[in-house]
Amino acid sequence: MREIHPGDLDDLARGAGILGTGGGGDPYTGKLLAQRAIREHGPVTVVGIDEVPADATVVAISGMGAPTVSVEKLPACTEEVTALRALERHLGRAATHLVPIEVGGLNSMAPFVAAARTGLPVVDGDGMGRAFPEAQMILPGLIGVTVAPMAVADDKGNTLVIDGVSDLWSERLARTACVEMGCSVSCADTVMRGDQLAAGLVPATLTLAEDLGRTVREARAAHADPVASAARLLGGVRLLTGKVVDVRRRTSGGFARGRAVLEGTGGDRGRALELSFQNEHLLARRDGAVIATTPDLICVLDTDTGEPVTTEGLRYGLRVTVLGAPCDPRWLTPGGLELAGPRYFGYDCDHVPLPTA
Amino acid sequence: MREIHPGDLDDLARGAGILGTGGGGDPYTGKLLAQRAIREHGPVTVVGIDEVPADATVVAISGMGAPTVSVEKLPACTEEVTALRALERHLGRAATHLVPIEVGGLNSMAPFVAAARTGLPVVDGDGMGRAFPEAQMILPGLIGVTVAPMAVADDKGNTLVIDGVSDLWSERLARTACVEMGCSVSCADTVMRGDQLAAGLVPATLTLAEDLGRTVREARAAHADPVASAARLLGGVRLLTGKVVDVRRRTSGGFARGRAVLEGTGGDRGRALELSFQNEHLLARRDGAVIATTPDLICVLDTDTGEPVTTEGLRYGLRVTVLGAPCDPRWLTPGGLELAGPRYFGYDCDHVPLPTA
Repeated sequence: MREIHPGDLDDLARGAGILGTGGGGDPYTGKLLAQRAIREHGPVTVVGIDEVPADATVVAISGMGAPTVSVEKLPACTEEVTALRALERHLGRAATHLVPIEVGGLNSMAPFVAAARTGLPVVDGDGMGRAFPEAQMILPGLIGVTVAPMAVADDKGNTLVIDGVSDLWSERLARTACVEMGCSVSCADTVMRGDQLAAGLVPATLTLAEDLGRTVREARAAHADPVASAARLLGGVRLLTGKVVDVRRRTSGGFARGRAVLEGTGGDRGRALELSFQNEHLLARRDGAVIATTPDLICVLDTDTGEPVTTEGLRYGLRVTVLGAPCDPRWLTPGGLELAGPRYFGYDCDHVPLPTA
Repeated sequence: MREIHPGDLDDLARGAGILGTGGGGDPYTGKLLAQRAIREHGPVTVVGIDEVPADATVVAISGMGAPTVSVEKLPACTEEVTALRALERHLGRAATHLVPIEVGGLNSMAPFVAAARTGLPVVDGDGMGRAFPEAQMILPGLIGVTVAPMAVADDKGNTLVIDGVSDLWSERLARTACVEMGCSVSCADTVMRGDQLAAGLVPATLTLAEDLGRTVREARAAHADPVASAARLLGGVRLLTGKVVDVRRRTSGGFARGRAVLEGTGGDRGRALELSFQNEHLLARRDGAVIATTPDLICVLDTDTGEPVTTEGLRYGLRVTVLGAPCDPRWLTPGGLELAGPRYFGYDCDHVPLPTA
């Protein structure tokens, strides 16, 4: 158990931005929103999974929408608590703990906004160990936890409580509402008991994100290679260092979808890497061959600074390094791949193991 | 207070189909669904507004969607009760009475389906005195009753509880969910106390519908003019007798929208009438001039039989008579016209009084 103060969020947001594999929202925005909430309402307590009582009511807090929208349409920061209260009303009981459903720039921070405003503790863990674009793509789903009941709230005060017959239906209904509400909303969902957390969550990912953010910052300060430091911590492998030469991006169906082409520089001169994304990076092709796929992490970092580059932040000329890093092993089970493997997203290939360094 | 048995629904459905001004769903389908529910679960009690206790919890039950869809995708008849239960859970109390939100072929019958299955009585009245396409177009809205909280359920078992910041937002969010759910869903909403019914509802419209249906049937049996009998009962005026020569219809945004052109026959030879509709008939132009507009009732009846013709039932060659009939006077107040006057629907004209016979 420890207290999170505004200054603690710099490293955390940076690391979560890297783990978010291009999605989960802008880390800078997320950090500012959480810092403001903590300054106004006081520090947030983070607890380990083993510190949560078995009968606790743990609620996941997140933002849903297209990150291309959320960089312009900032949350009012009331949505998280509005969604939480609507869910609690439906449940007939109060939440005792909040948890991020995914790590990512904005979505690792959303629970801190709600936690600061409600005084509830945040659990150190998340439901993915990365970020994914759709609500049903959660490890708790593999142990029978459902996304529904799912409360959705917008900045105007509209709320919905969705009880889908499946996680896919909950996602579908929440997504259409999200688009109608302006493509950036807050959700409270995936209610878990404390004794489900060990099997349902990826543990200690907030700590991992903070370590990752610190490693990058320290390497930069020491004039070392921040990207190499991040790769080491993640057990990841460099897929390409180069510059962005083409980005095609559109906001459709409530997502930021597109492709980016990178041209290798330095030792990678002559090589090309193509990234396909739907909020998050999902597939990397190097010189035409698939070398990394969802559910493994495909992380784009600024080559000089090691700062995460989100899919909505990709732009021509940016000098970046793309890392591949292994996902939580549960994602590679048949159930995990069905939820978030490349075929779910329409790619005509199976998951391929990451290349060895 | 009286009991409604399956045989009572023939006249009621016919009359409600006429009052539904082309919308509110197919009367034949509606009747069959309600008759089956009553056969399976027992008769339904109908009570007058003055028989409802002041502290009663009255819930409106209706179908939402495009009638072009609901004629093919029949309700499972579980949706009404699923929606009602979701709303009751949200309210934290049980409904004591059900009421139609509008009269119309399917929507006058939906409360009977729910009433048969739950044993609750149905209030003799409705929220419009006709049918309208959008959820916020209700007279209770003029006395401060809100559509929200609004529960929506589909045939698959998906439910949503919507709490919009305005009736327009509730409509918008329900409509997008409705489209995603297959364009034909059931709703439980517009919660009223018993003491709000007198000011909020149009009284005795179920009785009026039944009288209207009986009048038409009896005139037909007596080889009299069933359309003239209906017009007399409604205080309505004949706008044109003719045949349908053109129908343009599309299902878009969750509605059946379009236009129909009628060519006069008999005494109306040489005249033409154009009807514009969005689920319901909203505007009639005779020989190019607007002669009837929403919120007045524009009813299309089969000239020979007096049976109501819904907007989705309009087809080339059909011999019909179009009646105009006065709406409830509250619709002609500024608030009523703002909700459902011709300008709301995008027509560049004000409400015009119906021609005198």
